[in-house]
Amino acid sequence: MTDRLRTAIAGFPPFEPGHVWLAGAGPGDPGLLTLHALAGLAEADVVVHDALVDPRVLALAHPGATLEFAGKRGGKPSPQQSNITDRLIALARANLRVLRLKGGDPCVFGRGGEEALTLARAGIECEVIPGITAGIGVPAALGIPVTHRGLARGVTFVTGHTRDGSGPDWAALARTDTTLVIYMGMQRVVEITAALQAAGMPATTPAAAIQNGTTEFERHVIATLATLADAARAAVLGSPSLIVIGEVVGLARATEIAGVQLRTA
Amino acid sequence: MTDRLRTAIAGFPPFEPGHVWLAGAGPGDPGLLTLHALAGLAEADVVVHDALVDPRVLALAHPGATLEFAGKRGGKPSPQQSNITDRLIALARANLRVLRLKGGDPCVFGRGGEEALTLARAGIECEVIPGITAGIGVPAALGIPVTHRGLARGVTFVTGHTRDGSGPDWAALARTDTTLVIYMGMQRVVEITAALQAAGMPATTPAAAIQNGTTEFERHVIATLATLADAARAAVLGSPSLIVIGEVVGLARATEIAGVQLRTA
Repeated sequence: MTDRLRTAIAGFPPFEPGHVWLAGAGPGDPGLLTLHALAGLAEADVVVHDALVDPRVLALAHPGATLEFAGKRGGKPSPQQSNITDRLIALARANLRVLRLKGGDPCVFGRGGEEALTLARAGIECEVIPGITAGIGVPAALGIPVTHRGLARGVTFVTGHTRDGSGPDWAALARTDTTLVIYMGMQRVVEITAALQAAGMPATTPAAAIQNGTTEFERHVIATLATLADAARAAVLGSPSLIVIGEVVGLARATEIAGVQLRTA
Repeated sequence: MTDRLRTAIAGFPPFEPGHVWLAGAGPGDPGLLTLHALAGLAEADVVVHDALVDPRVLALAHPGATLEFAGKRGGKPSPQQSNITDRLIALARANLRVLRLKGGDPCVFGRGGEEALTLARAGIECEVIPGITAGIGVPAALGIPVTHRGLARGVTFVTGHTRDGSGPDWAALARTDTTLVIYMGMQRVVEITAALQAAGMPATTPAAAIQNGTTEFERHVIATLATLADAARAAVLGSPSLIVIGEVVGLARATEIAGVQLRTA
């Protein structure tokens, strides 16, 4: 393993002092961390992480690295986004190797683009390292492929709400014939499932809500578009949860029954 | 690095003889391989891979592992899908550790769900390991975040065509206000860009086509919805290429100018 990993890491760009690596940590399971993010953890002087980065991932940081929490909790607004980027800039200007580590993928609702642009405008060298986004990794761990021939033409990732308080065009989304994966949608699950049904999506469409996917705290309900909100309430599912709506959700039971192993740790 | 990686890998489930791990290899860059997929490469007796798995990733396989090509080339139909699953079943029944390795993520247009179901029905233990899908990793390497506050409500992944020859509902997709990422769409780029404009998407919407993203052979064009087809033809972009349409594509130049490092190897 050692030689193989040395080979794997050998061609990596060095982590230069004064640079920022903006990396995704995946949905939780450390096995879903990328080699490049692991190299960042091994070399960083400081790791600035958000609330969604799994403790098992943070445990892989260099023993001498400083860990700084700079996250946002689900459902809250983000008054401190500028404080976070100011902090990253200050650390980089102190000539440190700065790993900015985010849950999932930094550019899928992670504000990675905003942080990268702000750093670039400040003259800080920044590298973006993708991660496994929860919208793909979490359903997979339940045996749900987000696309499947004959069941879904594709997959759409949206959030339950946006900065201006408005929601997506659920009627348009209902017509795309794609699996819908909704991040940060639990607070509006009643409105979302009602809007999709009003747009013509069948009430019997399989739907799931999954909290803390790929971690030991994972909990989920599998229901239908009509029953998801009640099922999630009955199970007391909170944040962060992912909502998955589409015929592919029906495969979760098929694979469970048939014995596909779930990758959870 | 060694101790850290031993720790990282230590909690992994063992790769049991007779089992199949169905893993994503990411878009090309070996740095985007997951630790879990790397563990699979280190332990597999046989690696059954498709055409999109980068040679640098295959080079990480155990020296004693057999590499078998069982892929499909872009644009071709797939007469041999059943042959592939038959082969996986035969290898597993021969009590081998079988790593089925696919480019990108196995469940995003990778037919991972189909293979997992077929294996499960045959009584073969199968574990699905997500990978970085090209639709996220390839744009990121060009400085394009697939979501960005104020520019895109989310992101939609579709294919340019489906099994029955029909295309997606481009009019519905145009109304979702999400970044559109189109896999296997280059053969229909003229029709796709025309359909989106006919549906009301502005002709000036930034659009990119990217071939062999995150590899040394990467080539791309950045244009608009109106000019993408001509630009791609002029640049002789072939398969496999990814099409990205949305305001976020405009950030590619911003980050390029401002100095965000691209992660390509």
